[in-house]
Amino acid sequence: MEKTLIINSGSSSLKFKLFSLPTEAVLASGLIDRIGIEDSSVTIKFAGEKFHKSLPIKDHKVAVDLLLKLLVELDLVTALDEITAVGHRVVAGGEYFDHSVIIDETVIEKIAELSELARLHNPANLLGIEVFKEQLPNALAIASFDTAYHHTMPAKNYLYSVPYEWYEKYGVRRYGAHGISHEYVARQTAALLKRPLAELKLITCHLGAGSSLCAIKDGHSFDTTMGFTPLTGVTMATRSGDVDAELVMYMMKKLKLTDPDEIVSLLTRKSGLLGISGLSSDMRDILAAKDQGEARAALAITLFVKNIVRYIGQYYVEMQGLDALTFTAGIGENSPIIRQLICDELAFMGVKLAPKANESGGEAVLSTPDSTIKVLCVPTDEELMILREIELIKLDPTRGKFEL
Amino acid sequence: MEKTLIINSGSSSLKFKLFSLPTEAVLASGLIDRIGIEDSSVTIKFAGEKFHKSLPIKDHKVAVDLLLKLLVELDLVTALDEITAVGHRVVAGGEYFDHSVIIDETVIEKIAELSELARLHNPANLLGIEVFKEQLPNALAIASFDTAYHHTMPAKNYLYSVPYEWYEKYGVRRYGAHGISHEYVARQTAALLKRPLAELKLITCHLGAGSSLCAIKDGHSFDTTMGFTPLTGVTMATRSGDVDAELVMYMMKKLKLTDPDEIVSLLTRKSGLLGISGLSSDMRDILAAKDQGEARAALAITLFVKNIVRYIGQYYVEMQGLDALTFTAGIGENSPIIRQLICDELAFMGVKLAPKANESGGEAVLSTPDSTIKVLCVPTDEELMILREIELIKLDPTRGKFEL
Repeated sequence: MEKTLIINSGSSSLKFKLFSLPTEAVLASGLIDRIGIEDSSVTIKFAGEKFHKSLPIKDHKVAVDLLLKLLVELDLVTALDEITAVGHRVVAGGEYFDHSVIIDETVIEKIAELSELARLHNPANLLGIEVFKEQLPNALAIASFDTAYHHTMPAKNYLYSVPYEWYEKYGVRRYGAHGISHEYVARQTAALLKRPLAELKLITCHLGAGSSLCAIKDGHSFDTTMGFTPLTGVTMATRSGDVDAELVMYMMKKLKLTDPDEIVSLLTRKSGLLGISGLSSDMRDILAAKDQGEARAALAITLFVKNIVRYIGQYYVEMQGLDALTFTAGIGENSPIIRQLICDELAFMGVKLAPKANESGGEAVLSTPDSTIKVLCVPTDEELMILREIELIKLDPTRGKFEL
Repeated sequence: MEKTLIINSGSSSLKFKLFSLPTEAVLASGLIDRIGIEDSSVTIKFAGEKFHKSLPIKDHKVAVDLLLKLLVELDLVTALDEITAVGHRVVAGGEYFDHSVIIDETVIEKIAELSELARLHNPANLLGIEVFKEQLPNALAIASFDTAYHHTMPAKNYLYSVPYEWYEKYGVRRYGAHGISHEYVARQTAALLKRPLAELKLITCHLGAGSSLCAIKDGHSFDTTMGFTPLTGVTMATRSGDVDAELVMYMMKKLKLTDPDEIVSLLTRKSGLLGISGLSSDMRDILAAKDQGEARAALAITLFVKNIVRYIGQYYVEMQGLDALTFTAGIGENSPIIRQLICDELAFMGVKLAPKANESGGEAVLSTPDSTIKVLCVPTDEELMILREIELIKLDPTRGKFEL
């Protein structure tokens, strides 16, 4: 049986999903965590069972060896050559990659070159790519980029009002992120509404630890909240979203920081829900604390909602209308109250949630039939999206060709 | 005859307007330019005449002496004690000042303390305040703050999603600017529409060398585009408006800058219309260049319009509706084509400009009677606004009291 492995390789973790073809059934999924640091472990879920083991895993090579060995041991593959394709999620594709590509030396070079735009992610993604290339040399290797979907944005939406040479020489522009998720969710939204995607004006709200919104028009990404880096946009778990650039300089001086990386780290790891609430980066904790009367937890929720609502307003006018608003990812899929708070602000436009549907969530329309703008929930599935890209490339390899 | 002098003191310039009371007639206005640098000069316009003289002016004291001497020589005042009040425009009022105040030692201390938030402006404003205090010790001295009007913004609109201690300890929040202008324009808009300001949802677009938008609800500033500093918000003549904070750090490294002030200077002086077009910071030049087929001039205009339109969308949803949109300041008052380009993007909401009215400009309603959202032009008059604050304080001095 032909199988495809989808890999999300982080600096100290490796997530995977194993699909069976042509059914697209998920045979197994799991995580190898804390690679190269203490307390590393492997978890594999399959057929209702869960395998978990703690053991030292010193690097990505050991992690991949272990994973492949376990897939055989747990009878998830009978032999490694059953795995005919490996899809890798890559964070930054810069201006080079506007679609998923078959990985070759040039692709690897370009991903390495783009590490400047995603200092933590791209090198980790490359580690995964290189180890799998060694271990499964005959499998088709594909890279899918989180930025590729946003290549259709018009210049007015990706350019900053900075010296134009910064764009030409240094690639300073809005790249966005979560593209694989936004694209998947947009397609599912059109399917649920039984309307052609190309005719819809959509906003997809990917609300998780990292959050971004995407305005989708004519079937393509038209604008998105993340910018040059994934720091910008709406309030996130620990990321600030939009701030005044001069504020950053002011705080560098106040905190006597000399290395720009230090202030970026505070904006990336100590801001957002965590920074405002002072309590937690997890929306579930924040909601519970708000119920306990914690004022700063309530404030964190208010800011989170406000920053999403303001972008919905922006995209409504930029797209000159809005047909549907879709929620996805950890918070978007699982928090009826957050969906409610956002939609309450849009009630003046005729947005109406059906309380029961909102409470239930799942892949469904959550708005009432007379809601002027449809509201949906679509659980995201980035691995399935990558799998489908791979299937298309198998049918037509020119689709996966990368040309400079 | 009682007269009031309104002063806008910059680091190397001093603008003034002399009003006669109680008629509010402008007796004279003018500029002392290039103070302390070569080619300094004084220009005074009065009764259809223009006085201009180039002469060395080494500091603000000399400038004020010269101005007062000329006011007498040109028969604009018969004696200096006719000037019973001096109003000073001050850029940063921080969290201290939510209204115009009578200047005393505490006020001066606080303005000095706030220089951190407006490094160029506040020290220059103070220079003017101190010299006039010496020269006209008996005149009532009032400070009007560009930030005061925005004190009514709710926390959700002035807080950033950064560590909350940054707000508590270091005053990191959105302060906004152009408040005197936004307030004046909002009042005139309500008057022109013959409706109580408190009942209107307005967006005032102050579009000049510096540009900002203000959302006005329940008669007060509800949100504004400028942030912690006047660098943020929409595209300006030479300022970038919103950028990804991490982009700034990236460019510091690329350009090998070690001093944060250097990159702030590039974002402040070399960005915006100038940075994108590579041609000019003046919208008139850019419009002319676009007509000549210059692609980057066209791009600069596209970005300028886009960034205004997106905030209109944001504020439309934040205020849950919009009654009127008012244009003011250099570009807002004088560029029918820019007003047209902005309103074209809002046509889907039922915004309709009356072409003749738009072409004429002036203080007028520019939209058609059936436009769902009224569009207006109101020439701003910050000096008149300050004058009126002074008149109110004269009637009730407790109004101008500053208490910590």
